[in-house]
Amino acid sequence: MHRAAARPRVTHGVIGLDPPGQPAPPWTTREWFNTGETLHLAALRGRVVVLHAFQMLCPACVHHGMPQAQRIHATFAGSDVAVIGLHTVFEHHAAMTPVSLQAFLHEYRIAFAVGVDAPSADARQPIPVTMQAYGMQGTPSLLLIDRNGHLRQHAFGAVDDLALGAAIAMLIAEGD
Amino acid sequence: MHRAAARPRVTHGVIGLDPPGQPAPPWTTREWFNTGETLHLAALRGRVVVLHAFQMLCPACVHHGMPQAQRIHATFAGSDVAVIGLHTVFEHHAAMTPVSLQAFLHEYRIAFAVGVDAPSADARQPIPVTMQAYGMQGTPSLLLIDRNGHLRQHAFGAVDDLALGAAIAMLIAEGD
Amino acid sequence: MHRAAARPRVTHGVIGLDPPGQPAPPWTTREWFNTGETLHLAALRGRVVVLHAFQMLCPACVHHGMPQAQRIHATFAGSDVAVIGLHTVFEHHAAMTPVSLQAFLHEYRIAFAVGVDAPSADARQPIPVTMQAYGMQGTPSLLLIDRNGHLRQHAFGAVDDLALGAAIAMLIAEGD
Amino acid sequence: MHRAAARPRVTHGVIGLDPPGQPAPPWTTREWFNTGETLHLAALRGRVVVLHAFQMLCPACVHHGMPQAQRIHATFAGSDVAVIGLHTVFEHHAAMTPVSLQAFLHEYRIAFAVGVDAPSADARQPIPVTMQAYGMQGTPSLLLIDRNGHLRQHAFGAVDDLALGAAIAMLIAEGD
Repeated sequence: MHRAAARPRVTHGVIGLDPPGQPAPPWTTREWFNTGETLHLAALRGRVVVLHAFQMLCPACVHHGMPQAQRIHATFAGSDVAVIGLHTVFEHHAAMTPVSLQAFLHEYRIAFAVGVDAPSADARQPIPVTMQAYGMQGTPSLLLIDRNGHLRQHAFGAVDDLALGAAIAMLIAEGD
Repeated sequence: MHRAAARPRVTHGVIGLDPPGQPAPPWTTREWFNTGETLHLAALRGRVVVLHAFQMLCPACVHHGMPQAQRIHATFAGSDVAVIGLHTVFEHHAAMTPVSLQAFLHEYRIAFAVGVDAPSADARQPIPVTMQAYGMQGTPSLLLIDRNGHLRQHAFGAVDDLALGAAIAMLIAEGD
Repeated sequence: MHRAAARPRVTHGVIGLDPPGQPAPPWTTREWFNTGETLHLAALRGRVVVLHAFQMLCPACVHHGMPQAQRIHATFAGSDVAVIGLHTVFEHHAAMTPVSLQAFLHEYRIAFAVGVDAPSADARQPIPVTMQAYGMQGTPSLLLIDRNGHLRQHAFGAVDDLALGAAIAMLIAEGD
Repeated sequence: MHRAAARPRVTHGVIGLDPPGQPAPPWTTREWFNTGETLHLAALRGRVVVLHAFQMLCPACVHHGMPQAQRIHATFAGSDVAVIGLHTVFEHHAAMTPVSLQAFLHEYRIAFAVGVDAPSADARQPIPVTMQAYGMQGTPSLLLIDRNGHLRQHAFGAVDDLALGAAIAMLIAEGD
């Protein structure tokens, strides 16, 4: 984790935010749910983006990551925060098709937009395109992208609500 | 809940922060634990103060409020946040003496400073002095005081970690 | 709930066991996982059978029913209790195929035998055969069948561990 | 853990019940709450006794043991099960007096009878009399005594609801 020197950045370090670096990679998706359009990261410039990468049959996603993403969506409704799901299937591909995902989203009452990460052009590569571009280690992964499109936090596994709420608020407070 | 007009204040409203108003009242205490000195609110100017008012035999305090205060203490260690406990006994006074409180703090591994709210000078008044000054409705109560000593959030009962982490971070980000 | 008169049956009533009535209907399945053979209820005569009917995309099944079935399997390993899963899909049929179920069982580390309830011969009837035969109201459903093949408890929704452990033990104690 | 040979005892072993051995020692108490009389173990002959030994400032008792004892009390109400609390204070004696205990029982809505274990006659011995007689390792301790007054399970620390419900039911099913 990067830690910077000045006051607000000390706090940023405490709650796990990296300083701005390179722009976050664009997303490559094949389909979207809960939205009428393809969502591009560039179009969300000016907003704080919470990207929750998951697989519908990953227990830690179902028990922890997805409920947390729903809490974020409810808590920050009405603010400049966009909560986006990304279905990054890298195993059991035949079991987690878009048809199954659609039923999952319905049953779990997921209300935010969810994109399906595009399969690799290389049939021998099970990891989908966006997951590769971000170098995600697995699911669930939680990524925070600031108003300027820079990746500021990238966590694999369970993240604490208190620190996460703080990190999102820090990004909101940065302004454009 | 007060809501203000400009951008960051919109977010403040979303996560439950009031705009700055009057200074928070000083504390009147009879004894402190986990600190060698009497802590005065004025001496914490420049820091964000999280005040957790509790009673050691209040189930919601033990199950929710106190563990949350400990998580805040752990999450924001190394930042400008001061977590302070205040034992505001307003019932069962003979059962929750400082001797019992000391054992409670030891057994529950409470590491932050805890003050004992001063009993009212009026023997018929069961509510202690600081609890009265703040108009607290009961325990647990959670109060957020900004770097300038203004009360910005006053919650009675359970508060959500995500919104609370965000509120604390907003106050940190305001700077002096 | 039926309540019977004599002493042990008073307790049976307290913990939710019905007196023995008609034999439980046989199961009609199309496929099994975690076992090399088709399991018939008749072949389990002499053992206490815990039948957990679920759908892999039913949140209450995933969060409550299935973990409970796993705890039953672990707690009563080495006893005369057979824990059996039954995938009773009555909605989102295209989303919960045996291929998806197999990945679900793998990801959630389900170790006990799971059968797939047979689709109705009537294409307009979404409820599968065994689910109809038992008159199940939905998922999760938990059914306790005694050593003699009689249905003794039929619960829809969440069941308490303490009462359930007691009910299973009562059936074990009845002997053959 | 003792394991016995015959069929029902195999199950007893699986769920953690010892075979009957010596009678459980009598209790030596100084005071009772939630009952108008001193309760003696001998007077409970014919009933299954669940004895929950605790300290009011022991976190594992408050978070786990006491809620479980309350669930047992609620689940087996109307059966031959007597749930009894025993306040076995062996540390922080000045902090956990009967006055404090009474407030604790009120605040936590404990409805079953609770006795206060008698202090040792030897002032240098912090462990109270009944706790010594049973050789308890600490709190919470859960003890199951059968209808004939024999100790059949003695657990220190957290016990699983499912196995505990089964153990209690086994003792109920044994009859007088």
